[in-house]
Amino acid sequence: MYLRNCWYPAATTEELGPHLLARRILEEPIVLFRKENKQPVAIEDRCSHRFYPLSKGDLQNDIITCRYHGLEFDFSGACVRVPGQTNIPLGANVRSYPVADKWGLLWIWMGEPRNADETLIPNLWTHDHPEWRISMIDRLDVDGDYRLLADNLLDPSHVAFLHKTTLGSDVAEIPHETEVFDEGVRVTRWTINKPAAPIFTRLHSFNGNVDRWQIMTFRLPNFVEVDLGSCDTGTGAQNGDRSHGIEMRSYNIATPCKNGSFHYFLTHARNYALDNSELSKITREQVLTAVAEDVEAMELVHEGFARHIDKKEINTRADGAGLRARRMVAQAIECEQSNAPAVPA
Amino acid sequence: MYLRNCWYPAATTEELGPHLLARRILEEPIVLFRKENKQPVAIEDRCSHRFYPLSKGDLQNDIITCRYHGLEFDFSGACVRVPGQTNIPLGANVRSYPVADKWGLLWIWMGEPRNADETLIPNLWTHDHPEWRISMIDRLDVDGDYRLLADNLLDPSHVAFLHKTTLGSDVAEIPHETEVFDEGVRVTRWTINKPAAPIFTRLHSFNGNVDRWQIMTFRLPNFVEVDLGSCDTGTGAQNGDRSHGIEMRSYNIATPCKNGSFHYFLTHARNYALDNSELSKITREQVLTAVAEDVEAMELVHEGFARHIDKKEINTRADGAGLRARRMVAQAIECEQSNAPAVPA
Amino acid sequence: MYLRNCWYPAATTEELGPHLLARRILEEPIVLFRKENKQPVAIEDRCSHRFYPLSKGDLQNDIITCRYHGLEFDFSGACVRVPGQTNIPLGANVRSYPVADKWGLLWIWMGEPRNADETLIPNLWTHDHPEWRISMIDRLDVDGDYRLLADNLLDPSHVAFLHKTTLGSDVAEIPHETEVFDEGVRVTRWTINKPAAPIFTRLHSFNGNVDRWQIMTFRLPNFVEVDLGSCDTGTGAQNGDRSHGIEMRSYNIATPCKNGSFHYFLTHARNYALDNSELSKITREQVLTAVAEDVEAMELVHEGFARHIDKKEINTRADGAGLRARRMVAQAIECEQSNAPAVPA
Repeated sequence: MYLRNCWYPAATTEELGPHLLARRILEEPIVLFRKENKQPVAIEDRCSHRFYPLSKGDLQNDIITCRYHGLEFDFSGACVRVPGQTNIPLGANVRSYPVADKWGLLWIWMGEPRNADETLIPNLWTHDHPEWRISMIDRLDVDGDYRLLADNLLDPSHVAFLHKTTLGSDVAEIPHETEVFDEGVRVTRWTINKPAAPIFTRLHSFNGNVDRWQIMTFRLPNFVEVDLGSCDTGTGAQNGDRSHGIEMRSYNIATPCKNGSFHYFLTHARNYALDNSELSKITREQVLTAVAEDVEAMELVHEGFARHIDKKEINTRADGAGLRARRMVAQAIECEQSNAPAVPA
Repeated sequence: MYLRNCWYPAATTEELGPHLLARRILEEPIVLFRKENKQPVAIEDRCSHRFYPLSKGDLQNDIITCRYHGLEFDFSGACVRVPGQTNIPLGANVRSYPVADKWGLLWIWMGEPRNADETLIPNLWTHDHPEWRISMIDRLDVDGDYRLLADNLLDPSHVAFLHKTTLGSDVAEIPHETEVFDEGVRVTRWTINKPAAPIFTRLHSFNGNVDRWQIMTFRLPNFVEVDLGSCDTGTGAQNGDRSHGIEMRSYNIATPCKNGSFHYFLTHARNYALDNSELSKITREQVLTAVAEDVEAMELVHEGFARHIDKKEINTRADGAGLRARRMVAQAIECEQSNAPAVPA
Repeated sequence: MYLRNCWYPAATTEELGPHLLARRILEEPIVLFRKENKQPVAIEDRCSHRFYPLSKGDLQNDIITCRYHGLEFDFSGACVRVPGQTNIPLGANVRSYPVADKWGLLWIWMGEPRNADETLIPNLWTHDHPEWRISMIDRLDVDGDYRLLADNLLDPSHVAFLHKTTLGSDVAEIPHETEVFDEGVRVTRWTINKPAAPIFTRLHSFNGNVDRWQIMTFRLPNFVEVDLGSCDTGTGAQNGDRSHGIEMRSYNIATPCKNGSFHYFLTHARNYALDNSELSKITREQVLTAVAEDVEAMELVHEGFARHIDKKEINTRADGAGLRARRMVAQAIECEQSNAPAVPA
């Protein structure tokens, strides 16, 4: 049901500090904290003794003391002390998870630890590029299947309807192209030689009409990059020269909590008005307003699927990329489960 | 579990307008609205694409536009537009339901559409008779099995206890007669030559003692007519001459929502003080207060049955009609399910 | 799952009066009241007719009248009247339960009534001893398995952690001894020739160091006596002479409501400051504050076990008595179920 051997955001970098943070990821209760040397740590959120949540305990000197009977656990999940006795019972250690701080997110590896290769963390390069500025890095919680996020983002035809009063200016009729590659699928929509959208004209003065793009790239397990921008028409944006306009980049990642709920990690960056902190704030508010509509839609669709299990959905032309992404996820899970190395208990 | 080939109230006439109204009837999510020409419409509350509820969409020119990806549906459930393409995918239509405006209620036919004969709608004749005035037409929501409504109304012995402080004056010991006919059962209680109940003396000046009647008639699927009145004693009420007193008529109909909940449609009419609008208001308030006691009782009995599935209820003499009604419902359902024509998917 | 042939507290004596009190015990809904002669009564909380809860009815002259159709039940559960008829239908009686007022609690026997021997009620002797004073008799409701109460109380190592800021002064490292006897298990901890705990020095002036004891005795079905005290060191407390100090006695009893919840009856008595009512009040407040920590812990452990059914808990040295108590409960249930006389339906 979930792909395990991959990196998921567990928290934003900002959420993690020298305190205990409880999360549930792929059904597993996990406690996260930052060591005194700032290194992030994630271990099972369960005292091996009576299953009291470790996240309710105390953290001192990088050691979690269970609040119930005082068993102590270090950053590796090892039980290092049982009050009232000198030996540590067999099986007292709990699981630890590889984690990595990167791109403003705290990534966790839910599969076989020795396969946790940090180079596999998705590339959110705009987050540390000098010509880009991050407008927001947020976490939203959605009561729905995690696969609905790709479904939502890969079908831009919903913008004209669901976001009518927020993003609004889009037209559902503009065709888009779908391109399949090894571990992903990409949807591209170009609007050539048209007036810029109001949201863009407020941010940049164009010479006249623009060439405008929306490029959504899905990658396993459930990562969607949204690449938006407009350039003065005819200046070569479609061939790669984006210097005559402005761009936005949004990363959208779903981390499944349990069956029917996920954390939606959402970031937004821009390559203009880099020093304008007020703009970051406004952008964040606008994005959160529009995304609240997506969240509500995903939750309603989730309920709808649950209520009508006897019915079969129909698909439209715009669903090609979304269906392809679903199949990729299904195949990757199936493949992982048939070949998977044993996960430590 | 439910009788399908019959008319159920889905809403009061007043509830329905040029806006989308979501209901769940016999487990099925349904969206209702009134067309520009005032005709009522009921279709499945599910976009065939991603199962987003159509009731969250927009209604314009008698067309529902799904708020998610903009698919459009007409009053017949036909999908008439898919943004971004010219053809309509196979299977995009959703189900529509026959509906009829009658007696101040909006009736829906949940069975095979071609059998939807409007002459089968229960006869609530007091609702448009010139010598009668409607005091109320209401909808209450009950967390209980829909069959508990007939159980409640066909056993008048509960009035003295459950409604002790509201209707009050009743005596449980007065015997009643039960009469079975083809598609129903009737309970009749006559109290001859006794003082009128306070509730009646306030409304009419009797010459002295009265003959008083309570006649409850159950009809399939779950319709109960309550016929109450008092006439001067000896003026022939028992033989059909009701001209020397006053009458009230209440219709009580249960529309199952899903297992364990139903809409309770309740109307009340009278043949006196026809011009007294204030009296309508007072009557409605009094009825709603008493009926709230019935609703609470039905909900508690529903919980009781659920908690004690291993126990068998006992029956009293007063239960004859209620048990008969239960059997009629059970037989009608069994009969319908064994002979039923296929319902469209 | 539950031991039936034993006495459980159903209420505190104070809770019970000339009114109807609804409880659920070992899954069974029960209604309790005190007769005009003060005798306690417990019968099934279900009218045999339509399963309306009798606890919602009226109590008058020791008779419960069902609020729905007026059936009447006496203290033995016998149906003594059905309105509208002279005979009582077969099977109209409901079950009654043996009850006994003792030690400030109302005890109920959930098994075969003829085995209800009042001498089997646990001995809470401090509750009516002239040299003792009761500080509190309370009922708490816990969302957890009833067996967690013995688990909690028999492992004193939790005091130093869970009650760090309330009871606090305990040290987890002090060894304790476990003694098994016929229907129970006892944990004893002696601290010899040490300063008295602050909580004790405030209550009594010791000559210097003290000998201090904590003795927890578990008895079936789920009764734990906690015996705490301190005496001037070397005055013979360990050999039974407790006259040179002070003692506290707490009784802790779990009455299962249903799977995953129980009533926690908790009493506290002392053999000092007998006339100090203010001290009773303060003691009660302190105990309730500390016990709220136990309740939270039991609820979290209950959740933890439910969430991790695939994992196996480890045990520490301090768990010996708790594990023994668990086995005793399991064996007693198994034994009762294989030999049990039939319980009346």
